[in-house]
Amino acid sequence: MKLLRINMENLTYRYEDLPDSELLWGGRALTSKIVHDEVPPTAHPLGPHNKLVLANGVLTGSLASSAERSSMGGKSPLTGGIKESNAGGTAGLKLGRLGLRAIIFEGIRDDFQIIRIHKDGVEFEPARDLLDQPISEAAAKIRQRYGEDVGLYMIGVAGERKMLTAAIANMDKDKSPTRFYGRGGLGAVAGAKGIKAVILDDTGVERNKPKDPQRFRSAMKIYAQWLREAPGTGKIFPELGTAAMVKTTNKLGALPTRNFSTGSFEGHEAISGETLRETILARGGEGTPTHACMPGCAIRCSNIYADVNGKRITSPIEYENIGLLGSNLGIDDLDAVVELNRLCNEYGVDTIETGAAIGVAMEAGLLNFGDKEGAINLLKELGEGTPLGRIIGGGAELVGKIYGVRKVPVVKGQAMPAYDPRSIKGLGVTFATSPQGADHTAGQTVRAQVNHHDASGQVEVSREAQKVNTIFDILGICYFASSAVAGRFDLLADMVSGYIGREITADDIVGLAQETLRMEHAFNRGAGMTKAHDRLPEHFYEEINPASQTVFDVPEEELLAIGTEGRVS
Amino acid sequence: MKLLRINMENLTYRYEDLPDSELLWGGRALTSKIVHDEVPPTAHPLGPHNKLVLANGVLTGSLASSAERSSMGGKSPLTGGIKESNAGGTAGLKLGRLGLRAIIFEGIRDDFQIIRIHKDGVEFEPARDLLDQPISEAAAKIRQRYGEDVGLYMIGVAGERKMLTAAIANMDKDKSPTRFYGRGGLGAVAGAKGIKAVILDDTGVERNKPKDPQRFRSAMKIYAQWLREAPGTGKIFPELGTAAMVKTTNKLGALPTRNFSTGSFEGHEAISGETLRETILARGGEGTPTHACMPGCAIRCSNIYADVNGKRITSPIEYENIGLLGSNLGIDDLDAVVELNRLCNEYGVDTIETGAAIGVAMEAGLLNFGDKEGAINLLKELGEGTPLGRIIGGGAELVGKIYGVRKVPVVKGQAMPAYDPRSIKGLGVTFATSPQGADHTAGQTVRAQVNHHDASGQVEVSREAQKVNTIFDILGICYFASSAVAGRFDLLADMVSGYIGREITADDIVGLAQETLRMEHAFNRGAGMTKAHDRLPEHFYEEINPASQTVFDVPEEELLAIGTEGRVS
Repeated sequence: MKLLRINMENLTYRYEDLPDSELLWGGRALTSKIVHDEVPPTAHPLGPHNKLVLANGVLTGSLASSAERSSMGGKSPLTGGIKESNAGGTAGLKLGRLGLRAIIFEGIRDDFQIIRIHKDGVEFEPARDLLDQPISEAAAKIRQRYGEDVGLYMIGVAGERKMLTAAIANMDKDKSPTRFYGRGGLGAVAGAKGIKAVILDDTGVERNKPKDPQRFRSAMKIYAQWLREAPGTGKIFPELGTAAMVKTTNKLGALPTRNFSTGSFEGHEAISGETLRETILARGGEGTPTHACMPGCAIRCSNIYADVNGKRITSPIEYENIGLLGSNLGIDDLDAVVELNRLCNEYGVDTIETGAAIGVAMEAGLLNFGDKEGAINLLKELGEGTPLGRIIGGGAELVGKIYGVRKVPVVKGQAMPAYDPRSIKGLGVTFATSPQGADHTAGQTVRAQVNHHDASGQVEVSREAQKVNTIFDILGICYFASSAVAGRFDLLADMVSGYIGREITADDIVGLAQETLRMEHAFNRGAGMTKAHDRLPEHFYEEINPASQTVFDVPEEELLAIGTEGRVS
Repeated sequence: MKLLRINMENLTYRYEDLPDSELLWGGRALTSKIVHDEVPPTAHPLGPHNKLVLANGVLTGSLASSAERSSMGGKSPLTGGIKESNAGGTAGLKLGRLGLRAIIFEGIRDDFQIIRIHKDGVEFEPARDLLDQPISEAAAKIRQRYGEDVGLYMIGVAGERKMLTAAIANMDKDKSPTRFYGRGGLGAVAGAKGIKAVILDDTGVERNKPKDPQRFRSAMKIYAQWLREAPGTGKIFPELGTAAMVKTTNKLGALPTRNFSTGSFEGHEAISGETLRETILARGGEGTPTHACMPGCAIRCSNIYADVNGKRITSPIEYENIGLLGSNLGIDDLDAVVELNRLCNEYGVDTIETGAAIGVAMEAGLLNFGDKEGAINLLKELGEGTPLGRIIGGGAELVGKIYGVRKVPVVKGQAMPAYDPRSIKGLGVTFATSPQGADHTAGQTVRAQVNHHDASGQVEVSREAQKVNTIFDILGICYFASSAVAGRFDLLADMVSGYIGREITADDIVGLAQETLRMEHAFNRGAGMTKAHDRLPEHFYEEINPASQTVFDVPEEELLAIGTEGRVS
């Protein structure tokens, strides 16, 4: 396994070996280690000292189900802290086939480059004709020019403009460039480095093989069985996708509605997972409610949404999209949500951050809640780069600052995903204390068997979830598999041991996850974060969520114990 | 002496006694103490828990020369830390005559009020007909309605919109509403509280008298003599105003030019203090190069700038205005600088923050450096509240974030005043370590007898300057008098003792200044600031200022000693 270090200022590169002893350093552990070790925590996120690190999970490339994810890391221009964002799709698989565990991008430049990586090295080309256009168009040109079968990382106009909502796209198994490294504005970091597209061409490269195929396969067999047997991964996700969550959160009073002013949406039926599935099935054609973003994924939570003529619009429509671009905007029209989602995908912005930003703009009175045409037009301004579009492209916190709005649903500058933290308090703890800012994938607690409205015990629930999510982010396995694995990490250790050919224990994996969180908090402390950053916005403590009749009331001392400052000792 | 506490949510008020034992708590000491004691450091600056504190200096109202300043304090929406901003003018004098040391505004509301304070109490009236208009127009209505002789604090459209550049105006001795509490966006805090205007009506109130008139007068006599004899206060300021500084800083390579990219401006002659004086004298009419903002000020650094027909345009044209709205924008046209200054005054925004914001917009390529019409039009958008105007009104840091610019001259979110910190390194230390963010008035070192290009000893120079500036901010004396006082604080103690009728020593005053700084740093730590916030922007450490051939190189360990974190013990 190798690391590839690319200097974008000089357009030079070199390979480094990843010693066998470090083969467990994958995904989030590796991006966070490199950022922690090599980026000064006070570095300007868009400056020459920040790095963009792309790292495969330990199992990425193994073709184990749901294990093709790769991580992006760097100092986030949105949070000012360390960032890891991961996605499924196919680029990780290609990266692995090229024998690369990670690529480290260094330096900045003003123009934009295409970086083509193949078995013999790296080539750079100006990206001029790919700029200022929808991601789908630019990706089609790439595939036409470099082969239908390449892997691809790409930014859109948002990243070119260094907007703080900017994400990085890669392609799903059907070559749709709609799988995003969404959170934290890493697309702006890529933009500052002049990285328009990274092409992974594995022509002439042999397929990865497990070091101990028998051990790997027998572990994988059990793992696949668990995935089939667990209700979430075996039935709910394949049928309804993540949008199954709409009804659950609406009932809990946790579905963000009209800028998180309440947690139940009178129009939720129209945008539920059930309605989504029915609509897709009724329209037929290119749409499908069950779709895998990665080759061989058994969970298949993705979908393809088609118009009334059965023609594909975009993919995937997920719970977070529905929550942030639907109920959070007071929009109860699935086609409108899909159009907003499609535009986000084409411009290359995080749907969560963008939905929250439009919600704050609605709070500011720029347009009314429920105004779907207004929301679509506002998002088009982002695509055009007008001043108003720039404001929205700056994310929820900046919209709040520009318009003097104080009810802004962010932590560490990053917008909350679609869970009101007053109603799912474990997630509130995660939002407050994760080094990543508000992020459900940093410690998802919604499936924990607790009273989500009750503050007691939520710190422990979140602590455990933060550990588990980090484990999955290191291994490159989608955390949706975690419900099926249910803490039985011995099996994961067995899979890893068989794949990398070294004896790995569950304790090794858990220990690395804890070390990863430690490094992330340490980086954030160096960047200037304290317990004052481990808080929800003021109004979540004081204003009752009418749907749940709760405020966020997990005591500050408890938060301290698992937050940035409490981890010093 | 009393404190007046006004609840803006309920429109209620109550008086509290300031015990005689606390009569030394004035100005910045009092605003910072109240903010420190009463505002949770994590409070949202525009939320219900922030307070806006208006406090007179200890000597304000005494009519000692240059001692009519009052302070505004609160948690800053711009820096996220504690803020004190002070100004001359006449409102402090009226406040003192009403027997008030301070007013504490609490709570928030959505509409705007006029708060009229007179000898018998407080009255509230809707401010509807004063909104959305130039400050000069609204102030004229106030004077017409409430009497020519009232004192006034007022916000403009920027404060109404809660822009982070928003300032608070008060009137000079000629009733021009152009003396600003400029820094830190306190106008937005007033806006969030629904405070459009505070009217101080001292009808029927007796003039303040010193408790020990003889002691006060004999000390004041010496003080007045020092002011006359010192070259700065006796000659340079009255003749050229603060704009005398243009030639000095240009020579030092410290005059910010084109977004702080260099420190000498080829067009500096056209905007120098000498040219300013000559222009004003040549045009005659209502203009004057020597003007007092406060009754009885001997320094008279202010001026009135008239057009070619001798008709008053605005007042005052100061060094900071010229540096930020002139050279920093590449503009070498005094009339254009004056027009930008006038617009800032009419909208009620900080000229420093606004000039820096336009400079960053120029860096982003929105308009060219030197484009004076473009700059004026951009500023007019701020007045109109267009999206682009909102962006500029957000200040330099937000413009940088919205447009992906990394060379943004701010510390703790607040724009640098007109001194390149690479060329006047003591000020660089002040900018980095002051709890107030980048602010020359928090520790002015330009007159220190040191090699400003040399890093050695600058921490001591800044530490001393921060102490001295705090002393003057507590007493209500303009810090321009500090060069005449030259550390002879015994005389100030004598003046204070005579005025308040208690024995005060120089040590008492110095001790209170140090306690004030301690409280401010403590608040900031609670708000989440660490040594990571006590830094200049990255590029000042790395990119040579071509005019001085220097970078900022005061070692981090030295900064730590006087910054936020070093003060913990």
